[in-house]
Amino acid sequence: MEPLYQRLADHYRQAIRSGVLAPTARMPSVRNLVKLHQVSLSTALQACRRLEDDGLIEARPRSGYFVVKRKRATLPPIDEPETGKILDPASYVGIHDRVSDFIAKCEIHPTKFNFATAVATPDAYPTEALKQSMLRMVRRHPQLLTSSVPHGGHPCLQAALARRALDSGVNAAPDDILVTHGCIEALNLALRAVASPGDTIAVESPAYFGLLQILESLGMRALEIPTSPHTGISIEALDLAFQTHAGIKAVVAVPNLHNPLGSIMSDADKARLVALCEQQRVPLIEDDTYGALADGDERLRAAKAWDREGNVIYCASLHKTLAPGSRLGWLIGGRWKARIAMMKFVQSRPNEPLMQLAVADVLGAKAYDRHLVRLRGRLKAQRERMAQAIADYFPPGTRLSMPRGGMLLWVEMPDGRSSRQVFETALPLGIRVAPGRMFSNSDRYEHFLRVSCGADFTADVDAAVRMLGRIVAGKLP
Amino acid sequence: MEPLYQRLADHYRQAIRSGVLAPTARMPSVRNLVKLHQVSLSTALQACRRLEDDGLIEARPRSGYFVVKRKRATLPPIDEPETGKILDPASYVGIHDRVSDFIAKCEIHPTKFNFATAVATPDAYPTEALKQSMLRMVRRHPQLLTSSVPHGGHPCLQAALARRALDSGVNAAPDDILVTHGCIEALNLALRAVASPGDTIAVESPAYFGLLQILESLGMRALEIPTSPHTGISIEALDLAFQTHAGIKAVVAVPNLHNPLGSIMSDADKARLVALCEQQRVPLIEDDTYGALADGDERLRAAKAWDREGNVIYCASLHKTLAPGSRLGWLIGGRWKARIAMMKFVQSRPNEPLMQLAVADVLGAKAYDRHLVRLRGRLKAQRERMAQAIADYFPPGTRLSMPRGGMLLWVEMPDGRSSRQVFETALPLGIRVAPGRMFSNSDRYEHFLRVSCGADFTADVDAAVRMLGRIVAGKLP
Repeated sequence: MEPLYQRLADHYRQAIRSGVLAPTARMPSVRNLVKLHQVSLSTALQACRRLEDDGLIEARPRSGYFVVKRKRATLPPIDEPETGKILDPASYVGIHDRVSDFIAKCEIHPTKFNFATAVATPDAYPTEALKQSMLRMVRRHPQLLTSSVPHGGHPCLQAALARRALDSGVNAAPDDILVTHGCIEALNLALRAVASPGDTIAVESPAYFGLLQILESLGMRALEIPTSPHTGISIEALDLAFQTHAGIKAVVAVPNLHNPLGSIMSDADKARLVALCEQQRVPLIEDDTYGALADGDERLRAAKAWDREGNVIYCASLHKTLAPGSRLGWLIGGRWKARIAMMKFVQSRPNEPLMQLAVADVLGAKAYDRHLVRLRGRLKAQRERMAQAIADYFPPGTRLSMPRGGMLLWVEMPDGRSSRQVFETALPLGIRVAPGRMFSNSDRYEHFLRVSCGADFTADVDAAVRMLGRIVAGKLP
Repeated sequence: MEPLYQRLADHYRQAIRSGVLAPTARMPSVRNLVKLHQVSLSTALQACRRLEDDGLIEARPRSGYFVVKRKRATLPPIDEPETGKILDPASYVGIHDRVSDFIAKCEIHPTKFNFATAVATPDAYPTEALKQSMLRMVRRHPQLLTSSVPHGGHPCLQAALARRALDSGVNAAPDDILVTHGCIEALNLALRAVASPGDTIAVESPAYFGLLQILESLGMRALEIPTSPHTGISIEALDLAFQTHAGIKAVVAVPNLHNPLGSIMSDADKARLVALCEQQRVPLIEDDTYGALADGDERLRAAKAWDREGNVIYCASLHKTLAPGSRLGWLIGGRWKARIAMMKFVQSRPNEPLMQLAVADVLGAKAYDRHLVRLRGRLKAQRERMAQAIADYFPPGTRLSMPRGGMLLWVEMPDGRSSRQVFETALPLGIRVAPGRMFSNSDRYEHFLRVSCGADFTADVDAAVRMLGRIVAGKLP
C-alpha cells in the first residue's frame, strides 16, 4: 500500500501523462488539493514536491505549480542487425506451440488492456458507413444470399481495389485481383503456388507469427534474413543467402511498415529487392497490409510497382485500414495468377459477394480518403503517447525504434528480461502484450515485446503501461 | 427445318411433358388447332396422329383427343460395381486440367439451362427470411463490421448447428463445432490434419470432383473404392483395400446422397464402415452435405452417429439446404479437434460473424423445418420429371438409378458415348452438363453425365433435355 502523498502524486501524474492536464497548465493550488482530496497540508505539499522531483511540474514564484513543457524522453534505437554474419541454417518452423500457448493463456484471462492485437479500436473505422452500405446491398441484392457464388471476386470490389492499388504504384487490371479471406489466405495461396513441403523460404527476422505458422502448416523451412528496424530486409544479407543457401524457393517481405518492426524500405531498396529476386528467378511474395498507414499524406509505393516480369505476388487486406470485422484480403498473382485462382477455388471457393459489395461501396467514396487521413493522424498520436509512456516507465536499457506509421511498437527490453515472463505476469493483471518469442523460429527476440497502439491513450492506458514498466523492471509481482 | 405438323406436335408434346396439359386433360379440338395455329386441317390431324403414335394422347369416340395417363417409362438401373476385382493402384490425382477445361469452356458460353451446378434455384431457398435476419443483425451489431473477429465460430451458430446435428444422430457440444468456409474448406482442413503429401486416401468411385481437386492440390494419392449407386461405398472392397494397400491414411465417404451417385448407405453399413475404420485406426472423413435432402420426413443418420472414439471427422455445409450464397460450412473434428482448429486459424482465420448470426437466426426458427419439407418435395418432383424426360428422350441403352433424395441424377449413356463430346456439343446450345470424366481420376466414367435437377421443370427445360437426348444419340449437330 503506497503512502497517501504518493497516491495523490500518481493521480496527477496520470492526468499529466494523459494530457488531461496539458503542458503549461496550472496545477490546483495546495489549498485546493487539501480541500479536493481531504488530505493534510503536508501530504498535499509532499505530493507536489514528488511531482516536481519527477520533473512533471515546476513552481513559479507567487503563482503556484505548473505542468512543465517536457521535452520527450527518448529511448536509444534498436541496434542494426549484423548483415555480414553467417545465417542460421534454414529450419523447419515450430511456432504453433508458442502461438497456441499464447492464445490459450489469453482466453483464460479477461483483458482490460489489449496491447497484443494489431488493429485499432472499432471507433477508428467507418462503422456507420459500412453499416449503411451493407444494409443497402442486402436490400438491393437479397438473391445473392441464395444464389451460388460465381467464380473469382466480385467485379465491383476488384475494380475498387484496382483503383486503390494505383495509389501505391501498382498497375493491375480488375481481373488480375483475386479476393481472398484476409491477407492470411492470400499468403497461404501464394506460398502453396510457388513452393512445396520441405522447401526453404527466405523471411524477414523478426517476422509476423502468422507467416511463420503458415510455413509450419505447409511443412516449409524458414531462412531468417537480418532486417533493419529502419530500412527493412537487408538486401546484402539476402544476396549472401542466395549464394550460400541452395534452393530458396521464395522470399516473403513486408516492405512497408513491417510487422513487428515498423520499418519502411526505401524506393531504391524496393527496386533492388525486386531486381535481385528476378535475377535469381525466385518469386517475391509481398505483404502490403500496412502500406496505407504511413504518417503524412504520401502513400508508400509497393515493391510490386517495380515488377516487370510478374515475379512479385502482391498480398494485402482491408483488415487494418477499413474493416477489421470483414475478413477481406486480396492478391495479385503475377505469373502464378491462373494457378493461384485454381487453388483458391479448391481451398475455399469464392468469397461471399455481399460483404465485397458493401466494402467496394465504401472504398469507392471520397470519404474513404478522409477516413485514412484521420486514422493515420490518430495512430501517430497514439503511437507517440505510447512511446513516451514506455520511455517514462520502462527501466534503463530499454530500446525502441520509432516507426513512421502504423500501430505497432517493437520494444527491446534490457538484456535478460523474458518476454514470456512479462506476458505471463501482465496477463492476470488484465494487460495483454505480444511476446517477442512469437516473431521468430529462433529465441533471438526473447527479450522483445510487440506493443500495439491501436487504442485511445487514456489515463487508464497510461497506468497500465506504468504497471507494465514495473513488471519489465522486475518490481512486480 | 422440321415439317409444320411436327413442330405443332412438338409444341403440344412439351406442354404435356411440362404438365401444362395434365394427364387426362382434353386436347384442343382439331378445329381449334386449325384456328389457333393457322394451319390446314390435314396438318392439325397429322400432328394429333403423331402425338397419338408417340403414346402421348388418345382419341375417345365422339369426344376428341385426351392426354393419356402414362405409366412412367423406366430406365434399367446402373450395374453394381465389381467389388471383388483388383483395384487400380493408388495414384496421384490429376484432375485440375479436366476441371479448368470445364470451367473455362463454361465461361465462354452463356448458359440457358444449367444442369451442371448442384444447387436448386434461388427461389427454392428462404431468401426473404435470410434477408430480414441479415438486416436485423447488421442493424443490431454494426460494430461487428469493425471489430476484430474472435477465435472459433460464433457461439450462436455453433449452438444452432449442434441442435440440428442431433437430428442426424450426431451428439456434439456447440464448442466442438468449427465454422468453415463451406464444406470445401472443412474437407481441406480434415485431410491436412490427418494426412501428408504422398499419402494414400481411400475415396468412393465415382467421387465429387471438388474432393479430387483437394487431393491433387495437397499432393495426395487417391485409391478409388467401388461404390454402389444404391448402397454406397462397398465395405468389402474397402476391407480388401486395407489388406492389399499399405498405409491408407484416411477414408473419405459421403454416406448420405452421395455426389454424384445419389446412393444412401444403410444404417447397418454406416455402423460397419465406422467400425472398420476404427479397427484399422484410419480416420473416416464424412461429408454430409446432402443428408437433409432425403425424400420424406425421416432425417438420415450420419455415420458420425456411430463414432465412439472420435475417429470420424464430420463435414457439412448449408450451401445446398439453406443458403447457396453463404459460404458457411462446418466440421466436428473428433480426435483432431485442436489440430484442425489451429489449421483453420492459420489458413483463413475465423469466418465473419454477421452471416453466421443471420444464418443461426434462420436455422433456429420452426420455419426452417417447413422450408426443408418444401425443398425436399420440390426436388423430388423435379428429379422425377427429369428422369422421365431422360427416359423419353435419351437413346436406348441409357441407364439411371433413381436416388431417394437430393438434386442429382447420375446417367450412364450407351457404350462409346463421350461425356466430353456431349458437354462440348451442348454448351454452345446454352445447355450445361457435368461430364462424368470429372468424377474420377480414371476414365471409368467417360460415358456418364451428372445432371442436376435444381431448376423448375418447365417446358423449356423439357425441350433442352430433348435436345440433350438427341446429342447423346449422335443426332446433333
